Amino acid sequence: MRVDVLTIFPEMFTGFLNTSIIKRAREQGHLTVNLVDIRDYTRNKHRSVDDYPFGGGPGMVMQAEPIFLAVEALLPGADAVRPPIILLSPQGEVFNQALASELAGQERLILICGHYEGVDERVRQFLVNREISIGDYVLTGGELPAMVIIDAVTRLLPGVLGDPAGATEDSFAMGLLEYPQYTRPRSFRGLEVPEVLLSGNHEQIRLWRRQQALERTWRRRPDLLAKLELSLEDRRLLAEIIRRAGNEELPGE
Amino acid sequence: MRVDVLTIFPEMFTGFLNTSIIKRAREQGHLTVNLVDIRDYTRNKHRSVDDYPFGGGPGMVMQAEPIFLAVEALLPGADAVRPPIILLSPQGEVFNQALASELAGQERLILICGHYEGVDERVRQFLVNREISIGDYVLTGGELPAMVIIDAVTRLLPGVLGDPAGATEDSFAMGLLEYPQYTRPRSFRGLEVPEVLLSGNHEQIRLWRRQQALERTWRRRPDLLAKLELSLEDRRLLAEIIRRAGNEELPGE
Repeated sequence: MRVDVLTIFPEMFTGFLNTSIIKRAREQGHLTVNLVDIRDYTRNKHRSVDDYPFGGGPGMVMQAEPIFLAVEALLPGADAVRPPIILLSPQGEVFNQALASELAGQERLILICGHYEGVDERVRQFLVNREISIGDYVLTGGELPAMVIIDAVTRLLPGVLGDPAGATEDSFAMGLLEYPQYTRPRSFRGLEVPEVLLSGNHEQIRLWRRQQALERTWRRRPDLLAKLELSLEDRRLLAEIIRRAGNEELPGE
Repeated sequence: MRVDVLTIFPEMFTGFLNTSIIKRAREQGHLTVNLVDIRDYTRNKHRSVDDYPFGGGPGMVMQAEPIFLAVEALLPGADAVRPPIILLSPQGEVFNQALASELAGQERLILICGHYEGVDERVRQFLVNREISIGDYVLTGGELPAMVIIDAVTRLLPGVLGDPAGATEDSFAMGLLEYPQYTRPRSFRGLEVPEVLLSGNHEQIRLWRRQQALERTWRRRPDLLAKLELSLEDRRLLAEIIRRAGNEELPGE
């Protein structure tokens, strides 16, 4: 996959692109990231990319022209099929694992990192074909969201994770939060690993993990559980969780 | 505010910490970020921080001990009041602007960047006092989430943004998506700025922006609108939006 990132802070990406799985994916040719400095497409001597908003108000707005020119330089054939041209913006559709999978099916993505108080609306209306938000919070710019999307998508590209099961057993890949994990030592400061995990009984371990994942999701993120189609086994496990919870001393409230 | 970040990839933070608002906030003393390499708290010669999961399964799990030791080195007084010790994890509560505001009221945060398939459950049960997720997607580690939280929180610290109105008029700060912004030129490739923004009539501009923010939120994120207490004016503006939408040719579906 090729990802073009339009940004006014290309240097922010250096550490991210040279660490861990993203570094390896680039070295192995699964991922190419092309950083484009939007300032290279300005035509004023200060290379400024922003100006005051029409109608007044606080802050500055990124101008349309440098962004249009930067995208057009990447896509010289006007009639060609356009890849997703994505504006990272708090106003976009909310990124999630399903959207990551969808984007992982593309050969190329263009990510535009917005900044300042916002981006001239004409970019939104006439240049981009998609807007994505990584969550309901205000960030300085689209750079961290671009990295989040590149990371989540790259992990799903064929060949990137050595162990293909790794990608599918993570939280959200199954639609549930992950079950508790333990590693050595077996006893750490008197805190013991649950017996079942030491039993060697694979079927018991599988059931315990599934039930733990269901219980954690039920307690912490019932919104996720409501979206799932549960198997008969899941429904039985969940019924037991709910019955046990009803018998617990409820914490004061 | 002081933020301690426990990570196995401290070098990932360099670009982020030396760019834009975060750089300035650090230079002006509003923010101190202390990067702690978890590997410095290992006691094996390979400085490895992970091991196989008990009970089998794909991937590796981060061990409890180096993380416990790294946190304890930061908090030598065992009885002292503990700051938020936050594990970045897909299983945490979902980060949003309200949580950013809450964290901005703290003097100190400790952020632990999880990795691999997960973190030994004893970290979750006996060391951290909070878990935060930045969204429903799978990332390689907690480093990008830590940066997201530092960015969102730092913007809310007194004195960090030159213009205090800037922080409050952004998307989510008002509970609505932001209204469209335009800057020069007035006409770009035949695409014009809306007349009202050039009118100089501040009350009309205010009303237009409020209505645009309401309409965009209603169309794109009705879930946000449902959480708001709307003023009488907002309800009138929204009624007009809904009435107009009913008169539109609806796109085919």
